[in-house]
Amino acid sequence: MAEECTHDCSTCGSACSERQENPQDMRAAPHPASQIKKVIAVMSGKGGVGKSSVTALLAAGASKEGFRVGILDADITGPSIPKMFGLKTFAKGAGIFPAESELGIKVMSLNLLLSNEDDPVIWRGPLIGRAVTQFWEEVEWGELDFLFIDLPPGTADAPLTVMQTIPLSGLVVVSSPQDLAVMVVKKALKMADSMNIPVLGLVENMSYFVCPKCQEKVEIFGPSKGEEVAVVTGVPFLDKLPLDQRLAEHCDNGTVEKYSSDLFKKLLQSTHLKAETGGM
Amino acid sequence: MAEECTHDCSTCGSACSERQENPQDMRAAPHPASQIKKVIAVMSGKGGVGKSSVTALLAAGASKEGFRVGILDADITGPSIPKMFGLKTFAKGAGIFPAESELGIKVMSLNLLLSNEDDPVIWRGPLIGRAVTQFWEEVEWGELDFLFIDLPPGTADAPLTVMQTIPLSGLVVVSSPQDLAVMVVKKALKMADSMNIPVLGLVENMSYFVCPKCQEKVEIFGPSKGEEVAVVTGVPFLDKLPLDQRLAEHCDNGTVEKYSSDLFKKLLQSTHLKAETGGM
Repeated sequence: MAEECTHDCSTCGSACSERQENPQDMRAAPHPASQIKKVIAVMSGKGGVGKSSVTALLAAGASKEGFRVGILDADITGPSIPKMFGLKTFAKGAGIFPAESELGIKVMSLNLLLSNEDDPVIWRGPLIGRAVTQFWEEVEWGELDFLFIDLPPGTADAPLTVMQTIPLSGLVVVSSPQDLAVMVVKKALKMADSMNIPVLGLVENMSYFVCPKCQEKVEIFGPSKGEEVAVVTGVPFLDKLPLDQRLAEHCDNGTVEKYSSDLFKKLLQSTHLKAETGGM
Repeated sequence: MAEECTHDCSTCGSACSERQENPQDMRAAPHPASQIKKVIAVMSGKGGVGKSSVTALLAAGASKEGFRVGILDADITGPSIPKMFGLKTFAKGAGIFPAESELGIKVMSLNLLLSNEDDPVIWRGPLIGRAVTQFWEEVEWGELDFLFIDLPPGTADAPLTVMQTIPLSGLVVVSSPQDLAVMVVKKALKMADSMNIPVLGLVENMSYFVCPKCQEKVEIFGPSKGEEVAVVTGVPFLDKLPLDQRLAEHCDNGTVEKYSSDLFKKLLQSTHLKAETGGM
């Protein structure tokens, strides 16, 4: 039995004597060298609302709080996590080991496996699903308190595969104030509900912009609708994030860890996270 | 033979005596009632850069110039075109007819077929590809000068299927100034190249924001890189569009046709469009 056993065999690969398998469960076990306490997927219905930035901020926040953290980049055809953390290659060895960021966050992404980061991955759905499953089953993550999964946008293959094969503690859903994004976020919430995955919280990104010259607060994408959507759908509202030049800059420069955010602390306080996962 | 024969049987469904089929060609013919002169797909590597807005602006621009225009919304799991044009249902009849916007733009989208626009479409790749092909083969588009296709982001199933089965005159590629989006746009360009689809132009969206109070021009997503990318990749640079509150508002209100833009005129002037398609 692992030193810090959570009694949830679905997130632990160790072949200990107390291992219990649920024959009804179609979820896959991680690599035997992986012991992962909580797996949180970050989802958005619509692309470009900053899902990957939110994943990065959550991971960096958790790491700064002293947790052991990993990111599985499931956005196979549009991976952006490695660039945000300034990572180019994964660790080579006898097995498949994730890359490690400056803060020690473990990252696995298809872009780390390409010889040229500009190469397109022209793959059909089943192959994409297979890559995501491999990142879960064959990568040696080691011991992690939190594994964040950056899902591709939409409700197609990759999010489906993750929800079916990886035992998720819950989802964080990211939206922007645009009506369009809100419509698509409702699709994402319905999908999570139909697959019995608890939604830990909703983040509204790009809520407003503060002009660096005159400090005017402008709601570029229209008035905030996050709290309203949260009330209608019964999902806890985590935070409202501005459209911030400095965050875009940090993401482009590979220094996202240097951006300060208390998003993870808010997630940790989410009663849903406590209820669904028994706290930390 | 159709009255305005283009001698390109791949974009015409009419079973006339002069019909020539290329046995090597894997592309599908449209519905017999469809005669479509030019098919232009709008693509982006990364989601959320405003691909659907660009599609809408191009279509509205073409319609205002007197062309007969259609939009095939291939963004099956995150369709946003109907909302931008204020459309809720498609025309019912003996066949499948597209909806028509105020300007007379014909639109077909999966969202027009859902009983509730918030319902998620949890489909795997092959089914998504099939829906897109059906929109091409089974919808009665009638006579069109331009059919614009709003592709889903990325380089997975739906763009693949469109590029393989629909005879495209060319692609318009949309990016934002973020390094990340630029990296992913290069993937999209390489994909187009590998499939021999001409790229008619690159549009940089969200290039800058003008503060409505003090008129300060802010490059929220970093300095513009579109022209540079265009030079490096040899793709013509079409336009640089600002992040505009009014456009977001029009898209949310279903009045995108009321927003004025000369993007289509710039596309029409693109030497690539003239060279690749023999002009209009």
